[in-house]
Amino acid sequence: MPRISVLGCGRIGRMHADNIAAHPQATLAGVFDTHAPFAAEIAEKHGVANFASAEEAINSDSVDAVLIATPTSTHVEFLEACVKAGKAVLCEKPIDLSLERVNALAKRIEGTNVPIMLGFVRRFDPGHAAAERARAAGEIGELHQVTITSRDPGMAPDGYIKTSGGIFRDMTIHDLDLARFLLGEEVIEVTATGSRLVNPALMEECNDYDTVVVILKTASGKQAVITNSREAVYGYDQRIELLGSKGMLITDNHHNHSMKKYLANETNVSSPLQHFFIERYGEAFDIEISKFVDAIENGAPVPVGFEDGRLALLLADACFKSVAEGRTVLTSEFA
Amino acid sequence: MPRISVLGCGRIGRMHADNIAAHPQATLAGVFDTHAPFAAEIAEKHGVANFASAEEAINSDSVDAVLIATPTSTHVEFLEACVKAGKAVLCEKPIDLSLERVNALAKRIEGTNVPIMLGFVRRFDPGHAAAERARAAGEIGELHQVTITSRDPGMAPDGYIKTSGGIFRDMTIHDLDLARFLLGEEVIEVTATGSRLVNPALMEECNDYDTVVVILKTASGKQAVITNSREAVYGYDQRIELLGSKGMLITDNHHNHSMKKYLANETNVSSPLQHFFIERYGEAFDIEISKFVDAIENGAPVPVGFEDGRLALLLADACFKSVAEGRTVLTSEFA
Amino acid sequence: MPRISVLGCGRIGRMHADNIAAHPQATLAGVFDTHAPFAAEIAEKHGVANFASAEEAINSDSVDAVLIATPTSTHVEFLEACVKAGKAVLCEKPIDLSLERVNALAKRIEGTNVPIMLGFVRRFDPGHAAAERARAAGEIGELHQVTITSRDPGMAPDGYIKTSGGIFRDMTIHDLDLARFLLGEEVIEVTATGSRLVNPALMEECNDYDTVVVILKTASGKQAVITNSREAVYGYDQRIELLGSKGMLITDNHHNHSMKKYLANETNVSSPLQHFFIERYGEAFDIEISKFVDAIENGAPVPVGFEDGRLALLLADACFKSVAEGRTVLTSEFA
Amino acid sequence: MPRISVLGCGRIGRMHADNIAAHPQATLAGVFDTHAPFAAEIAEKHGVANFASAEEAINSDSVDAVLIATPTSTHVEFLEACVKAGKAVLCEKPIDLSLERVNALAKRIEGTNVPIMLGFVRRFDPGHAAAERARAAGEIGELHQVTITSRDPGMAPDGYIKTSGGIFRDMTIHDLDLARFLLGEEVIEVTATGSRLVNPALMEECNDYDTVVVILKTASGKQAVITNSREAVYGYDQRIELLGSKGMLITDNHHNHSMKKYLANETNVSSPLQHFFIERYGEAFDIEISKFVDAIENGAPVPVGFEDGRLALLLADACFKSVAEGRTVLTSEFA
Repeated sequence: MPRISVLGCGRIGRMHADNIAAHPQATLAGVFDTHAPFAAEIAEKHGVANFASAEEAINSDSVDAVLIATPTSTHVEFLEACVKAGKAVLCEKPIDLSLERVNALAKRIEGTNVPIMLGFVRRFDPGHAAAERARAAGEIGELHQVTITSRDPGMAPDGYIKTSGGIFRDMTIHDLDLARFLLGEEVIEVTATGSRLVNPALMEECNDYDTVVVILKTASGKQAVITNSREAVYGYDQRIELLGSKGMLITDNHHNHSMKKYLANETNVSSPLQHFFIERYGEAFDIEISKFVDAIENGAPVPVGFEDGRLALLLADACFKSVAEGRTVLTSEFA
Repeated sequence: MPRISVLGCGRIGRMHADNIAAHPQATLAGVFDTHAPFAAEIAEKHGVANFASAEEAINSDSVDAVLIATPTSTHVEFLEACVKAGKAVLCEKPIDLSLERVNALAKRIEGTNVPIMLGFVRRFDPGHAAAERARAAGEIGELHQVTITSRDPGMAPDGYIKTSGGIFRDMTIHDLDLARFLLGEEVIEVTATGSRLVNPALMEECNDYDTVVVILKTASGKQAVITNSREAVYGYDQRIELLGSKGMLITDNHHNHSMKKYLANETNVSSPLQHFFIERYGEAFDIEISKFVDAIENGAPVPVGFEDGRLALLLADACFKSVAEGRTVLTSEFA
Repeated sequence: MPRISVLGCGRIGRMHADNIAAHPQATLAGVFDTHAPFAAEIAEKHGVANFASAEEAINSDSVDAVLIATPTSTHVEFLEACVKAGKAVLCEKPIDLSLERVNALAKRIEGTNVPIMLGFVRRFDPGHAAAERARAAGEIGELHQVTITSRDPGMAPDGYIKTSGGIFRDMTIHDLDLARFLLGEEVIEVTATGSRLVNPALMEECNDYDTVVVILKTASGKQAVITNSREAVYGYDQRIELLGSKGMLITDNHHNHSMKKYLANETNVSSPLQHFFIERYGEAFDIEISKFVDAIENGAPVPVGFEDGRLALLLADACFKSVAEGRTVLTSEFA
Repeated sequence: MPRISVLGCGRIGRMHADNIAAHPQATLAGVFDTHAPFAAEIAEKHGVANFASAEEAINSDSVDAVLIATPTSTHVEFLEACVKAGKAVLCEKPIDLSLERVNALAKRIEGTNVPIMLGFVRRFDPGHAAAERARAAGEIGELHQVTITSRDPGMAPDGYIKTSGGIFRDMTIHDLDLARFLLGEEVIEVTATGSRLVNPALMEECNDYDTVVVILKTASGKQAVITNSREAVYGYDQRIELLGSKGMLITDNHHNHSMKKYLANETNVSSPLQHFFIERYGEAFDIEISKFVDAIENGAPVPVGFEDGRLALLLADACFKSVAEGRTVLTSEFA
């Protein structure tokens, strides 16, 4: 069983640490966070090492693989350190906010065969994955249109928003990867629009958008439409739809439970949607660890790798450019 | 096109008159009601005869067939008059509140070939009918269990309840017929329970029940369960379910429209159910007229006839007996 | 009761004639079609006049109002004739394929007070209309995003496609009007993309698209996204979604009936969607006639008028321009 | 954290052991099974004790509480041993197949304050529990009718069936407890019917039924209807429904994932239902452990205790009697 260390003990790092500790095929080797008490709490809970530094958490002999859940600005450094140490790595998205830096890293690590997996967890959602398998199996014939609805339950704190890299690099990037996964073909055109409706003042300040629509197009004309909002008060809205020549596939939202009320003036009243990504994609996060372990232990291909992370970021950059210039942007412009 | 007269211009008679008038294969010949202004209003609206008597509405040369929507106590008399006049007849349920009288009428009209159709409209609901066809086609293998949920949106007026013949003869009778239709086999055992929960005082007074459960069983052991309530404040609840050796079929309720709300604390909030039988079974009432016309014009077999009406009443009587005696009652006890 | 004549006895004209004939507050005055046998059949069925010419069907003293369901190329001429004759008119969409001609007509009929209603029937769908009312009542707070999914069950015949004016003027125009209705604010920016996936050869030949996505934006930043396809083999797909600061509203598709199957490998198997607009918007077409009658008889404001028809066409033109030029187009470019 | 040992390492014992091991507030103390290899496998997996005997697994100083998942025939003995040892105990249903033996045990352990909890896991399902809370909070007014649909995905092996105590004691017992929980009032009348439809020969041999309907009634007239089948090929069907004077509550089935297909002839095609109790009630089994821990650690009242187990068995006996005698049976007959 691979011994995996977790860098970063914020909300998502904790979750990963818990998942690895409970995983039947993996062992939690230890944790690290620059804020020591966070790491200490998790280390104690699971009876594992609280590493003194990221270097130690990567290079220790007791560590076979590394999960990077630190702030984005550190990803490139830690990724590179893992590759140098020959430690398989599962890195949270995005690789970095700068496509240039990612391109530069790509060159530096070229030729390495250390497994690098990107944390685009939505690919592992049982519903989304079943849709992709059904499409690949031809159940809906030729794919024509992908629709992704993806809305957060509420605005992140101002401080987070300001350093997030903007909605396309922070939030849409998940959907851009999911669109690539579902399209099964590379995107060549990007058209995006952005509005400031949830918190106009903050968006103005950050030159960012909180409500966006993106259209992607492949060489064969397949389209993907992504609609995002930073705030859907009814909950974390995560739906996809695939239209093909022989049918349609959809995945629907998950509710807290299956109880429904029928009252005098309203019927079918259902429970709220599962709160946020930790609940909604809980099963997917577990499967993600399994896939990572499978790559480490059995040499299975990494299901979503470094180049996927780079291309998602490229598409995010193309979105910003499209909004700024009011035109369709070609991905070839970024070559 | 057969010219059909309508006896009785209450809520259901008006609806039938409107349906016949608008029907592409039928003509409304005229109407009759002992309360003349009711009939006059409909006659004027459709520009048809307001017959001076039920006899005229049955025997007139301008009438090919008759729809009986008068109070139950008159059904036997009018049915017999129609048979004597050789006029095809579509009679609202129940034939009568007395099984003896129905048996007596059955003897008197034995051997006649005048089409007599009973208004068990639920058989014609597109959903319920599709379920029956799917069962008959073997899509769920051998049938094991039928479940019928049938609840009125609210208590009928006290006066109606007192003369209704009791819940089993007035309300459950629809479900008893539907159960026979769906079972595709005759019922041999009846077990029923009744409670007084919606209006206990009135129920006590009438020696009736407002909340009942009935279990029917056929010779081969197939079961049907009917749950009824005189009042479901969330609306007219009409659902069926068929369990077979290879699958299950269900039909669901109909809502006023398809709009749903997703709010901070409740999701999927749907519109109320269609109010009552006139709305919920609107399509079925239209199809019922078509089937009646088809029997008149083309000699098609009457899809639900006099004997079906008699057997539904027999089952209703068995329900009362079962509740009274706290035991399973055999239909053979009524032979 | 207004006496309404119907010009054009194709599929949609017949439906309107039937609806008017059956409508409790309207009378069918007669019909006209250049192909006389079509008109004769309907005239006979309803026992009404088969007018010798469009002029007669408009100007006859027996006609109070006119419904135009002829080919698009004749709409301008007949609309103008109705206005001159002082006959209220309900005109099928689009007014014309040429914005210039529509603008010219607008000038010619300026100042008239003859009611002109456009047949954007979707506004009258009980579900869509309930969503608009809920939005207007503030149930979802401030509106942010409208999503319209609108797909035909199958390609129209080649001949129709070639003269349709292109997907945006023929098909999307319904959604462009619906978007304006739901947004409650004028659109100022149009961004569209088009693909040729269903029938690439035909689309190439017509310089048209069969699979499109349109993004509309209002001055305050509200967005509407429309996804269209000329062919959805699973049926006529008609859904809308409104995201606001306090919630979301959706309308779902209509199935043929409510029966569902649960089998060994698949559950919840539902019946096909209602075939096409005549079935899906049957209730809305009826309400449309009621609204028209209400405008004629009671001077109620026309719910969707000439300017709505003109603006929908303008947006359709903007879509073509956006696709051709690969950029966001301003509606002010068409001033 | 209480150290809990698990007696019995069959399918359900393993699941409980895994759940306790992963539970943040509990510790797995060790396991025992008469078939040593079963226990060894689990002990090794979790690095815990493989106790040499049930006595040791109960009395060891390293054990604070015991979970009994052994064959039914051993429950009484182990329960009593736990009580004597002062160890809190969570016992799988049923307590025993003999009401007499359970009554005798009740007397012997009278007055003890060792927490005894019964494994009626359905009470802890988030959906069912939400329904019960909503009822208790008055959201549907006065309760009138409870409907429980409960069907297994397939027949258990013949050997199991023959020693199961019959459908009412083995399968319906869960629903009988759930009915008591949801009714919030004691049952005084039991009416049941049984059929042999899935495997008539085996049922004949065992004098058992595979398809049953049960009606329960409380003193105030509230009704509960339970429909059971030993085989629903479309999956483990678990639904409840509560009708009250002000509304209805339902819980629906759980599917494997949320993907749905829309094809040319069928729409809304959903994935199979979650296979069986381990999947469907996975969350509930976790909550069950939490409730047990809460009773042990914090003295919280045991949410479902010994008397609940005894009364469910009494109702099961009443069902058999009702079917045998074809009549409504009073629970007072068992006093």
